Amino acid sequence: MLRIIVLGAAAGGGVPQWNCGCAVCSAARNEQPELRSTQASVAVSADGEHWFLINASPDIRQQITDTPSLHPKGGKLRHSPIAGVILTNGEVDAVAGLLSLREGWPFEIHAHERVLSILKSNSIFNVLNPELVKRIPIEAGAAFEPKLPDGSPSGLEIEAFEAPGKAAWYLEGIADEQPGDTLGLVVRSKADGDSFVFLAACSMVTPDVAARLRNAPLVFFDGTLWRDDEMIAQGLSRKTGQRMGHIAMEAAIPALSDSGIGRKVFLHINNSNPALLPGSPEREAAEAAGWLIPSDGMEIKQ
Amino acid sequence: MLRIIVLGAAAGGGVPQWNCGCAVCSAARNEQPELRSTQASVAVSADGEHWFLINASPDIRQQITDTPSLHPKGGKLRHSPIAGVILTNGEVDAVAGLLSLREGWPFEIHAHERVLSILKSNSIFNVLNPELVKRIPIEAGAAFEPKLPDGSPSGLEIEAFEAPGKAAWYLEGIADEQPGDTLGLVVRSKADGDSFVFLAACSMVTPDVAARLRNAPLVFFDGTLWRDDEMIAQGLSRKTGQRMGHIAMEAAIPALSDSGIGRKVFLHINNSNPALLPGSPEREAAEAAGWLIPSDGMEIKQ
Repeated sequence: MLRIIVLGAAAGGGVPQWNCGCAVCSAARNEQPELRSTQASVAVSADGEHWFLINASPDIRQQITDTPSLHPKGGKLRHSPIAGVILTNGEVDAVAGLLSLREGWPFEIHAHERVLSILKSNSIFNVLNPELVKRIPIEAGAAFEPKLPDGSPSGLEIEAFEAPGKAAWYLEGIADEQPGDTLGLVVRSKADGDSFVFLAACSMVTPDVAARLRNAPLVFFDGTLWRDDEMIAQGLSRKTGQRMGHIAMEAAIPALSDSGIGRKVFLHINNSNPALLPGSPEREAAEAAGWLIPSDGMEIKQ
Repeated sequence: MLRIIVLGAAAGGGVPQWNCGCAVCSAARNEQPELRSTQASVAVSADGEHWFLINASPDIRQQITDTPSLHPKGGKLRHSPIAGVILTNGEVDAVAGLLSLREGWPFEIHAHERVLSILKSNSIFNVLNPELVKRIPIEAGAAFEPKLPDGSPSGLEIEAFEAPGKAAWYLEGIADEQPGDTLGLVVRSKADGDSFVFLAACSMVTPDVAARLRNAPLVFFDGTLWRDDEMIAQGLSRKTGQRMGHIAMEAAIPALSDSGIGRKVFLHINNSNPALLPGSPEREAAEAAGWLIPSDGMEIKQ
């Protein structure tokens, strides 16, 4: 069995986003605090005791405080159940939380060389002492078992695959897009084979993506936007979802309708996405198609 | 008049700190949530409408959400009352929050060249579009008036002075310590001359520091530790306060007892500091000496 906790469900900026006055952000600040959501990250554990985070969001300190499973074990002066962080891309909303995991606790960072090179070239990440916090390259297609701080096996097996996406946008114009900028992950319990697929940034359902997801028992999938041009239509941005490397829900839902996926969960949901609002036609359409819009702290057993 | 809001009162890591099981952090997680505190930052405004942050803590998103004065103005799709950020050093707990101020809102960053060079050499800060977010060098001793996004005057006058401290520790061994690594600020309302001194990182009360603080109507002062060796004594670290560039409260209180300061507020208080606990002998000693231990969200008018 795998235990999975949605630490945050929102896309970059979160809900509410600091400078956004859209209907969803305004409601989240005031009359509907239940709409609040921190930036996307999930925690996964094979033993319920040691946890690996998939991505480290800027909200990580708040997420850890709000998640009892991630609190230090009673009676220890320095401790964390967090044994490692798996990074699937180099965007700020996926890596900035690493800066909050300082203070001398050993854990592993697993990321593609493309993302490790970002960490290396940004000296601020040296707050994580490299003797305590190992940086380990992920190779697409090569399954690995992340280790616990004492070197013992975690009971998880992770295989990454290259997903259609784009490079971190603060590197646009500096670095070309290359395979490895965006990864999907297949995460398995070694004990019983239970598994899920994590693909929270994906620009299209290619034949390869469809094959990866086919008959998966549980999938976390890119839920950034409902409609490709919604941020333009709402006057929030000049960028389409495609330009940002994200397929729209209204395109993903039909593309994955016959995929045989067991449970389908959207993640990395932008504040512009009307599916965030319970009762909206978009939310109802997503739920009718078997998709879950999670809230922060939701636990899923697989 | 100046309005000042304590967005966060805690030192790096906050209370609770993610991997800390000390008495204060454990109580803050469980039976005493009122002990929770985010990482140090204050917001200041001369007009109650436009605000400048002193330092940008990793908890900035949570701090903005919790502070109605910093919410977007009603009826605007994209807006923030935040007109600028003044950085007093380059530590993670002072600069990481900049990464959360992305999304296309214009504001100014004011910092010493030493700190600007850190931002420049870390490409991740390019998420802040340099056309929208101007980086302006602070020169010690040269008073300046930060501008509002439309170019109009803010009504604030800020003069920085070099404080005894140390370089950001992730640069240790790479960069030598130099003047400008740690700044104190004198912040004045141009309209009526009301002012305060911000000096939340300071390793000793030198004659120059004493002169800066003498007869100041309001001072925010380094409150990291109660005792220089408390982190060693508690088994939390091998570093003294002096090694980290912080004077202990028990040394600062007598050193500033005859300084004629109007209101004395400690800031950047570490979770190891027993003065955090209401009713502790250390808290009572600090309060008896006229010092305030603030909580997040506290507003001070000056």
